[in-house]
Amino acid sequence: MSEFFSSRWIAPPADCTEHPTAELPAGFVAGAVAAAVKGGEAPDVSVLLCLSPAVSSAARFCDSGVLAAPVLICQRECELGAIRAVIANSGNANAATGDAGLEQALHVQIAAANALAIEPREVAVASTGVIGVQLPGERIAMALEGVARKLDRAGADAFAAAIRTTDRLDKHVSLALELPSGTVNLSAQCKGAGMISPRFATMLCFVQTDAAISTELADRLLGASVKQSFDLVSVDGQLSTNDTALLMASGASGVAIEPGSEDEYRFAAALDAVLRQLALLMVADGEGAKRVGRIEVTGGDAGVTEQVARQIANSPLVKAALFGGDPNWGRIAQAVGAALPGQAPLRFDIAIEAIPVCAAGAALAFDQQALARAVQRDEVEYAVTLPGGGNRTELFFSDLSYEYVKINAEYTT
Amino acid sequence: MSEFFSSRWIAPPADCTEHPTAELPAGFVAGAVAAAVKGGEAPDVSVLLCLSPAVSSAARFCDSGVLAAPVLICQRECELGAIRAVIANSGNANAATGDAGLEQALHVQIAAANALAIEPREVAVASTGVIGVQLPGERIAMALEGVARKLDRAGADAFAAAIRTTDRLDKHVSLALELPSGTVNLSAQCKGAGMISPRFATMLCFVQTDAAISTELADRLLGASVKQSFDLVSVDGQLSTNDTALLMASGASGVAIEPGSEDEYRFAAALDAVLRQLALLMVADGEGAKRVGRIEVTGGDAGVTEQVARQIANSPLVKAALFGGDPNWGRIAQAVGAALPGQAPLRFDIAIEAIPVCAAGAALAFDQQALARAVQRDEVEYAVTLPGGGNRTELFFSDLSYEYVKINAEYTT
Repeated sequence: MSEFFSSRWIAPPADCTEHPTAELPAGFVAGAVAAAVKGGEAPDVSVLLCLSPAVSSAARFCDSGVLAAPVLICQRECELGAIRAVIANSGNANAATGDAGLEQALHVQIAAANALAIEPREVAVASTGVIGVQLPGERIAMALEGVARKLDRAGADAFAAAIRTTDRLDKHVSLALELPSGTVNLSAQCKGAGMISPRFATMLCFVQTDAAISTELADRLLGASVKQSFDLVSVDGQLSTNDTALLMASGASGVAIEPGSEDEYRFAAALDAVLRQLALLMVADGEGAKRVGRIEVTGGDAGVTEQVARQIANSPLVKAALFGGDPNWGRIAQAVGAALPGQAPLRFDIAIEAIPVCAAGAALAFDQQALARAVQRDEVEYAVTLPGGGNRTELFFSDLSYEYVKINAEYTT
Repeated sequence: MSEFFSSRWIAPPADCTEHPTAELPAGFVAGAVAAAVKGGEAPDVSVLLCLSPAVSSAARFCDSGVLAAPVLICQRECELGAIRAVIANSGNANAATGDAGLEQALHVQIAAANALAIEPREVAVASTGVIGVQLPGERIAMALEGVARKLDRAGADAFAAAIRTTDRLDKHVSLALELPSGTVNLSAQCKGAGMISPRFATMLCFVQTDAAISTELADRLLGASVKQSFDLVSVDGQLSTNDTALLMASGASGVAIEPGSEDEYRFAAALDAVLRQLALLMVADGEGAKRVGRIEVTGGDAGVTEQVARQIANSPLVKAALFGGDPNWGRIAQAVGAALPGQAPLRFDIAIEAIPVCAAGAALAFDQQALARAVQRDEVEYAVTLPGGGNRTELFFSDLSYEYVKINAEYTT
């Protein structure tokens, strides 16, 4: 049914129709403007506003020890359950910028509140780009005044485009969802391509709905979906300083989602699917990425499956083999061993695209041509079974390509 | 004085002269032979023998949960304090090969013992190469018979060449060391270029001396030097299945090194310098590597400096910037934050080649041209200072290049 739900690993949610244009749900307007933060003339400052003061919202941030100023300002100055607007810029992360960086972020927040005629505590700020350079807050503040008068429901495209950095793929969606209590709409815009880690992702993700949702439920729904999406992906295992996910509900559809209802169940499933597909788009758009891998580790004691899955998903050897279409399962075995030091000999199984290549720790004979063909696909599945236990962890990861090196060897220069 | 001690980070040991040819210390002979394990006609099976039954030895192995069969055989079947011979092959790691792999390794060990007329428990076996392919033990056993009759003291070069896989640089040395009690000789042969991690390295390293050293002292000396060398390097953070370091002392010089003596102190310093230089050669020879980085993290609570240093040394973003000669210290800040989740805002300092770029968590103004020049060198130094504590960790790491991706994308195919 959908162009958006493109991965074989995501089941499109039931009773859901994709809007042909990226219109925002009722009650939201957006727009973007160029403020030369990126250095060129492309729009790099995005604004999104909920027209209703009855908004409810929820947010999640990464837990880096080096949090960017906009994240610290959101955590310290915002009422996170009642965010009405978000101001995002690309081209500058405003991270490792100290007190001056906090002042710049605060300046942007206050200027946006003035331009939009709302309170500063209702304005979330988000930044993405180069670390360690002071944000031109005054220039952003000036640009905001112009864009604040030109926001509209069709502005989601412009909003999504202006938060991009090294992203190549569009990562936004707008859909209608039939719930027992009526139709609601859901839209989301996301950016992220490098510095993506399973502990969260270097990403900004903004989700809007015209359903009416309590602050408590919004927080629970966003938290659960983030754990099943952005927490399960890795481009390069590198935790960002700026990750932000923000869900806002305008209530403008008149359809209220009550905790524990069938409405909640269906809405949660749709939100899960949307965030998982966005997370997979980030992986597919991983800097220089050609293929996406999925690793599923089952068995083992508590916590062990996740350790093994992360070691595999972050291994440059596994990633380079995925890029090369190289059916070298020795790299998977190596990563399993590295994740579980001192436990040799381990009796683990490995299958690639359902072809068993290793059983009880030892190589199997297998159809090499069939395997070589299977690893040429855009999405490649690896399965590892550990002895004992009933645990299960799945992670999605991108490959490691020449282009990743090129992008990151020449980032600031 | 030395061609071998080429890094600015290694002080050549005092009273030490490099032998112009790679002759083994008295009491040792070596050689190599082609057994088509690599697939071509290049020698791929190496033999090293101590002529004296009075040898003492010590060994260290990696702690992967997926240990290769030769490592398991060494641990189970060898008398590790009395190893007289080592049989190493390249082209096949004999890892993830199960019981059949153990049988093949055992077969090679017994065949070598027969060919050399010593006991199987005196023969260490070592393998490096592709994981998950059965070792042609019978072919190696046949080849051994020929080489066992042609071992000599000049065979160190052939031995070192035959253990190479993707190595580009020679990694062996032979030197004389003036001790208070007399002159002893020390030689070492090492291989390693990929799958190199700070928890040990994907490497084989064999060290010989004609000093007389007790088994206990040999074990203590090797253990201490491995911690200061192979444990401190990272090409790609990927723990191997096969790492082996073996020290053998023939006693043929007649110079005995007594525990606690000035002899021990000087010998230990030389062994440290040799293993550190070999470890740095592995990093410099890291698959596709162009530059070597050194990260020194000071301050912080116990264990924290090591966590931060490893996060930096293993970051593909830091490595790609090192490769590109890109003075992007934001990648260092990102890695610090990732290593210390939940501790924002962190007041850390960063300097690159002694140029301060970040103080108390905030960007500094600095001479950008001077920094850009400094990061073009073959060896680049990064320093991170964390608040509090008196801890210190140094790690050496290679960059991430197109060539690394190429080598690992096309490894088996």
